Amino acid sequence: MTPSVTSAVTDGVRLLRETVCRLHAELVRYGLVAWTAGNVSGRVPGADLFVIKPSGVSYDDLTPESIVVCDLDGDLVDGDLAPSSDTAAHAYVYREMPHVGGVVHTHSTYASAWAARGEPIPCVLTAMADEFGGEIPVGPFALIGGDDIGRGVVGTLRGHRSPAVLMRNHGVFTIGADPRAAVKAAVMCEDVARTVHVARQLGEPLPIPQTDIDRLHDRYQNVYGQR
Amino acid sequence: MTPSVTSAVTDGVRLLRETVCRLHAELVRYGLVAWTAGNVSGRVPGADLFVIKPSGVSYDDLTPESIVVCDLDGDLVDGDLAPSSDTAAHAYVYREMPHVGGVVHTHSTYASAWAARGEPIPCVLTAMADEFGGEIPVGPFALIGGDDIGRGVVGTLRGHRSPAVLMRNHGVFTIGADPRAAVKAAVMCEDVARTVHVARQLGEPLPIPQTDIDRLHDRYQNVYGQR
Amino acid sequence: MTPSVTSAVTDGVRLLRETVCRLHAELVRYGLVAWTAGNVSGRVPGADLFVIKPSGVSYDDLTPESIVVCDLDGDLVDGDLAPSSDTAAHAYVYREMPHVGGVVHTHSTYASAWAARGEPIPCVLTAMADEFGGEIPVGPFALIGGDDIGRGVVGTLRGHRSPAVLMRNHGVFTIGADPRAAVKAAVMCEDVARTVHVARQLGEPLPIPQTDIDRLHDRYQNVYGQR
Amino acid sequence: MTPSVTSAVTDGVRLLRETVCRLHAELVRYGLVAWTAGNVSGRVPGADLFVIKPSGVSYDDLTPESIVVCDLDGDLVDGDLAPSSDTAAHAYVYREMPHVGGVVHTHSTYASAWAARGEPIPCVLTAMADEFGGEIPVGPFALIGGDDIGRGVVGTLRGHRSPAVLMRNHGVFTIGADPRAAVKAAVMCEDVARTVHVARQLGEPLPIPQTDIDRLHDRYQNVYGQR
Repeated sequence: MTPSVTSAVTDGVRLLRETVCRLHAELVRYGLVAWTAGNVSGRVPGADLFVIKPSGVSYDDLTPESIVVCDLDGDLVDGDLAPSSDTAAHAYVYREMPHVGGVVHTHSTYASAWAARGEPIPCVLTAMADEFGGEIPVGPFALIGGDDIGRGVVGTLRGHRSPAVLMRNHGVFTIGADPRAAVKAAVMCEDVARTVHVARQLGEPLPIPQTDIDRLHDRYQNVYGQR
Repeated sequence: MTPSVTSAVTDGVRLLRETVCRLHAELVRYGLVAWTAGNVSGRVPGADLFVIKPSGVSYDDLTPESIVVCDLDGDLVDGDLAPSSDTAAHAYVYREMPHVGGVVHTHSTYASAWAARGEPIPCVLTAMADEFGGEIPVGPFALIGGDDIGRGVVGTLRGHRSPAVLMRNHGVFTIGADPRAAVKAAVMCEDVARTVHVARQLGEPLPIPQTDIDRLHDRYQNVYGQR
Repeated sequence: MTPSVTSAVTDGVRLLRETVCRLHAELVRYGLVAWTAGNVSGRVPGADLFVIKPSGVSYDDLTPESIVVCDLDGDLVDGDLAPSSDTAAHAYVYREMPHVGGVVHTHSTYASAWAARGEPIPCVLTAMADEFGGEIPVGPFALIGGDDIGRGVVGTLRGHRSPAVLMRNHGVFTIGADPRAAVKAAVMCEDVARTVHVARQLGEPLPIPQTDIDRLHDRYQNVYGQR
Repeated sequence: MTPSVTSAVTDGVRLLRETVCRLHAELVRYGLVAWTAGNVSGRVPGADLFVIKPSGVSYDDLTPESIVVCDLDGDLVDGDLAPSSDTAAHAYVYREMPHVGGVVHTHSTYASAWAARGEPIPCVLTAMADEFGGEIPVGPFALIGGDDIGRGVVGTLRGHRSPAVLMRNHGVFTIGADPRAAVKAAVMCEDVARTVHVARQLGEPLPIPQTDIDRLHDRYQNVYGQR
């Protein structure tokens, strides 16, 4: 860790490494990831840093210490392992979207199937209206290795209610105020991707009027859960 | 707890909190719920009260003490947390259906897919005749936040053999003599929703004559299990 | 236990209760059963008896002691609980097929979906040729409560290579030389029912010539496993 | 073990038996195998030997000691149990492909469904480009019991980027530099087989240009993971 990192930040990093390590187990529990194909990151409070999964490490072998720290250019700042190969995309989101505190990337089956067809998931479930406020949009086809994926994620989600984007022929990126919220969005994205897929297999789901989608989304964002 | 609650009721509440807490694990085990999207409630014997899941709490974190007590208007009577955002619907069912001792709500995948198309599940399996006595019906589209969902559930299930209703574009509500029976109905509803969906994917399931459905339902309700 | 039961039989019953209790966990592990809907039985060596699951008891709550003993008319001979409501069908199989030492019944999803359409599963996988020696046949629609189901199972499987039958609009019965072999057949039946269903969703599976099916079946029955 | 086997080889065999035993648990975890239908093998460093699962033994019962050692003709060299009935196919691969250090065979559901139709899996996901470098090819129909399966595997994979082949009407064989890489290929093969199947159920996936597939494959083979 560079000397510029204060002890408050050091504590924040330690806690965040534990949180982000633990949240990867949720990706496994909900069947969103195979082998090592999925990652969670979280922005360090009060610093231009984020923590992220190391590349190619099994979820079983993840420990808080193995989680690496990067700056907002995606360069390694602290940690013994190489960061996730998706680090540049996460970094781009943190640079461009200051309100985002957590990012998740998966290739979860049903969401990736919609992404392979380049088709947004229509909002035909009240749970989708609640969580996504409308359809889940599709982002562009983009190659890994530069800012293309990050630019596609940000360009699609900016100004959109949905915290999830289906990157064409690729998979899902979700954002949230913190890593747990981004993981929740990834879990709910796959859940509604599957239910709407299954509904569509035998006919057309009934539409929900836009005014009802708006009311459901507004209520859920303001009333649900513990205050 | 208000002074009007006797010690017998207090004991009943304590036991019911344990039961209802434990039954949420069955929703998880059978894959009926993602994140926190599903809830079980149970009527307190001898009192106009029911217990229900707190809003937005993870199934892992549920304890008997965290389960809240509400009156039949859905207002919190005992507990430290806000009740489930579906509490009004549960309360409506308990007010209008005195024989109901347990209510379950989920967004389980296959049942919700039928609900998204607004299509009842036809009774083409002997297990469906046993448990549901015919098709599983569809209730109206209804917004959360008042009595609309509860009214839709009760209006559909009153006078119907089925303990499960598919609420349009939403999910499932099931009822039972006690919370365990309602959870069983939720588990079996998803099971038959999936099997009939799979059957329909490759053709038309064969119908079961109504007289056979009636005989199977009658036998199952009166002979199955331990007496 | 009646006085006619010798101590060798008593030992056999005790071991068989343990085996049959434990094998129910395989039905759970492979997702073949929801709630209490599936059962395993085993013939007692050297006696006109079999052991079977008690009716309506959760798989979690099964113990060797809770497994009941019945005679070949399906009447309870030993045990504190009522036998499975499918006992008459198991008893019929043991009466009519002396080489059968184990019977399993489930409503596993994909097999039951084929059964709901009344359609046999075509033999388009080498693993199906190995285990079933051809298609998995469909038995008649039959009501519970007498010998009709048992008669349908035996009438379909007698002289057939397949140890599994899809009972129309109902589910699966499998037979084996012992309860473990019948459980294996139930597991493999659902496995091939699912794979062939998935194959058929996007086109027609390629046929396997009958002579190759015969060779595969013959080899598997005589060479596979430890001798 | 024959006298020609040195103590370095003996150590290698011991470690490899542990590795291969443990890797079978990954097949179970990812749901690639039912009952005993799937096996992992690994080439012994510095010797014309490989270790493989014994035939018909449950994954629960596998121990490092139960894993058997065979020569490259597939004949048993060390071990108390009969080797997997697929041993001849593994042996053929080790004989013909000196760079291969691990082989896996499964009947995983979605991959076997493509195999039943004799249809290669098109490369419409970036994860497929990464791991397989293009489509996953189909090998010929071949009977067990001689070199036919091994010849089909080698004939299809030689000169192909994909480490996985769908053997017609049968299942999957994967290869890798070591057994862990072959298991990863088997896990990823089923993952993409399922996602592309689901995508195809509701329309046509969008193609990925060959130049992008090439770039993705090249990058993944050279950059991903820890160096």
